[in-house]
Amino acid sequence: MAKDQFVSQIADIEADFPQWYTDVVIKTKLVDYGPVKGTMVIRPYGYAIWENIQRELDARFKQAGVENAYFPLLIPMSFMTKEAEHVEGFAPEVAVVTHAGGEKLAEPLVVRPTSETIIGHMFGKWIESWRDLPLRQNQWCNVMRWEKTTRPFLRTSEFLWQEGHSVYATGEEAERETLAMLRLYGEFAKSVLCMPVLTGRKTEKEKFAGAVATYGMEAMMHDGKSLQAGTTHYMGQNFAKAFGVQFTDKDGELKFGYTMSYGVSTRLIGALIMTHGDKRGLVLPPPVAPYQVVIVPIAAKKEGVLAACEALREELKGAGLRVMLDDSDNSPGWKFNEWEMKGVPVRIELGPRDIENGKMTVFRRDTCEKSELSLANAGEGVQKLLGEISVSLYEKAKARMEQRVVHADSLQELLDGVNAGRFVCAGWCGERACEDKVKEFAQATARVLSEKNTHATCLCCGAKAKYTVYFARAY
Amino acid sequence: MAKDQFVSQIADIEADFPQWYTDVVIKTKLVDYGPVKGTMVIRPYGYAIWENIQRELDARFKQAGVENAYFPLLIPMSFMTKEAEHVEGFAPEVAVVTHAGGEKLAEPLVVRPTSETIIGHMFGKWIESWRDLPLRQNQWCNVMRWEKTTRPFLRTSEFLWQEGHSVYATGEEAERETLAMLRLYGEFAKSVLCMPVLTGRKTEKEKFAGAVATYGMEAMMHDGKSLQAGTTHYMGQNFAKAFGVQFTDKDGELKFGYTMSYGVSTRLIGALIMTHGDKRGLVLPPPVAPYQVVIVPIAAKKEGVLAACEALREELKGAGLRVMLDDSDNSPGWKFNEWEMKGVPVRIELGPRDIENGKMTVFRRDTCEKSELSLANAGEGVQKLLGEISVSLYEKAKARMEQRVVHADSLQELLDGVNAGRFVCAGWCGERACEDKVKEFAQATARVLSEKNTHATCLCCGAKAKYTVYFARAY
Repeated sequence: MAKDQFVSQIADIEADFPQWYTDVVIKTKLVDYGPVKGTMVIRPYGYAIWENIQRELDARFKQAGVENAYFPLLIPMSFMTKEAEHVEGFAPEVAVVTHAGGEKLAEPLVVRPTSETIIGHMFGKWIESWRDLPLRQNQWCNVMRWEKTTRPFLRTSEFLWQEGHSVYATGEEAERETLAMLRLYGEFAKSVLCMPVLTGRKTEKEKFAGAVATYGMEAMMHDGKSLQAGTTHYMGQNFAKAFGVQFTDKDGELKFGYTMSYGVSTRLIGALIMTHGDKRGLVLPPPVAPYQVVIVPIAAKKEGVLAACEALREELKGAGLRVMLDDSDNSPGWKFNEWEMKGVPVRIELGPRDIENGKMTVFRRDTCEKSELSLANAGEGVQKLLGEISVSLYEKAKARMEQRVVHADSLQELLDGVNAGRFVCAGWCGERACEDKVKEFAQATARVLSEKNTHATCLCCGAKAKYTVYFARAY
Repeated sequence: MAKDQFVSQIADIEADFPQWYTDVVIKTKLVDYGPVKGTMVIRPYGYAIWENIQRELDARFKQAGVENAYFPLLIPMSFMTKEAEHVEGFAPEVAVVTHAGGEKLAEPLVVRPTSETIIGHMFGKWIESWRDLPLRQNQWCNVMRWEKTTRPFLRTSEFLWQEGHSVYATGEEAERETLAMLRLYGEFAKSVLCMPVLTGRKTEKEKFAGAVATYGMEAMMHDGKSLQAGTTHYMGQNFAKAFGVQFTDKDGELKFGYTMSYGVSTRLIGALIMTHGDKRGLVLPPPVAPYQVVIVPIAAKKEGVLAACEALREELKGAGLRVMLDDSDNSPGWKFNEWEMKGVPVRIELGPRDIENGKMTVFRRDTCEKSELSLANAGEGVQKLLGEISVSLYEKAKARMEQRVVHADSLQELLDGVNAGRFVCAGWCGERACEDKVKEFAQATARVLSEKNTHATCLCCGAKAKYTVYFARAY
């Protein structure tokens, strides 16, 4: 009864996935709407996930030799216009500061939508010779893109992200780094978010404004739509020329550098919700869950129960786990529902009989199965279980994605595929007209190019296929 | 010779302290000027200090039960005007977004100078009953205050900070937290920045716009001027009433909460530079130094030297230390100067003779003294030395501050005191007119009120003293 009441707070995941998403993010207190349209407030339960993402990713960047820095929020409007494609892509969605300190500014300032321009400017100032290369910096910050349609985490006017920017002496090195960071993101998605991704090059239409080539990682959501979860960009010399990023090479000649950039954002939180969530609510991957374990005392008023729960909490904390002991006045049933909706990977129920038998009842959120574990070596046992959950979450999502890739030889087949929530693999001639036609006909876009071209003809015009493309509807 | 050349890159610390500061922060690559006037770029060497400050402080907040969250950057202009004193204080220095997404906005948006208003708005939405209290959240973010005169770290139009905001059911609790956070800051300043501080209540003139009471911690810089290094504010019900922060109390009545806030910023980096720096440049406290130890190989080309240096680096890293092995082509003398200017707490020189004798030559940056340590148990030895350096830095700064506090019974004595770089302790009647007179006569301000009033008369008007005040010139 109680459980049904609780579940009924969130919309049916199969019948109305968009409403399910909104219900879940709001009711689990991950996020709330800010007072300005399109903005979000990331609440403690959501921010803790972001902190875990940051810690894991930041360690990987540092391990790779990237240094953190911080560049200004406000960018002179004139910077935006120095790279023609860049301004065309971003100008329509920037927020502009026109007044400050009680006066109208001589030049309007753009709230950064991304920082290639201002970082290019500073790199140009700092780099003198080949000895200064490669220069590899990253920043964790807020950015702003004024969007018409917004949804918490997925698309908001302001969001948090990291943006890495590097300069190399040669294009080969910069391209190599662009692919290396794509691999780093893919490994991170797998081992930290337990989320399989498709990675590959983007089409010209879908690439970053000002890039020579953009690479993306795409994840399949519960409804079969794709979510762009991270991108890396090879800029060639476009930004280096626009911002005077030059160095004296070993041969004494002054040359332009080659730049690249890469970023992931708080969108990843939306991605993991829509990858793993189920009808009961959130299912959080253990590596990023704010609490990996919740302990619920059974018959908490019986002597020794609360003390045993506290001892267990300390033991699990000692084993490096993030643990919540819910010793509130609510009933166990209420707590079960609450923490299931909030997606805590493991629930431990501990009552007088468990304590007597030296056991604990363990509920894993991903499969909703109960089992027993020994109270002795509890840390080790729970640690192992969390590892199994992580692997299982990843395998389940991977199987879904693989099962849901279909092939199409015509627009109609593609439309049938995306209507059924599939990623559609198809041949493409490489012409923008055909890509536009796919969008118009099926509201689907080219997510990434396959590494190999395995198709003979373009699904649209029937000409010889130049690429094999993964098409999908996307967030 | 080389050393003199190097030192000559930075201005004489005694003759021209402001220029010394600018030279040091720019030449050690802590920071650079951004393209927009008044902005700064925090470079990796400076940002690493900020990361260490964040890690230490964040752990203390979490330990105290405060949760992190993230609130939007842009605040509706109408929010600012809801608290009369608040808007008066901040309106002159806000940056305003008037256009976004290619259109003029219906309501201008303020780039947050601080977030009491928007957080008050959200807290009002979230809080229902006494069960929701206390509510204690913190955010790490950027803020913007358009300043006329700026200096890197000390005063910039944009800076990074943390701002904590709490709501309590009673004023007593909120006031207690205001003082508890002041103590937390003071302990942090001592044990992490090795920086002694004066703490106390601010005068009405110096308090935060909208607060009932502001408390500050003040640190004495090398030149005897004071730097406000952190503040905590008790707001009473001012913001709760302006933003409808209400709760149903245990007695069933709807009541307004009591709020408080607290913040420290990247200004702390300026504070530690001007507290510990000397004629050779930076002297970084071990708890925040990006590298706590630099290893300089002597006769690096001799067999075994580089391998021994690498083994030592790994051993020190294993002991949890942040270590740089400078195996560049530069001469040892050049490296000594470079890392002394950059303030690395401990330099280890390791050459063939040291290795043969199982010793390493150790230079401590704070005293510029050399000694020898055994290569066996290097980690333990260096760890101990870093601890000694931290204590010594703190004691030295504390002795300076204590020696430089003088008492004054007249404006002239106060002027003489601040001219000589002193903190001047004096009686004050409590009237704004006298406080203004001090500013006009001596360009000094009331930094904090002493806990006890130990003076008989006001240094300005001669009336009965209500408070004893620490006056100083300030950054």
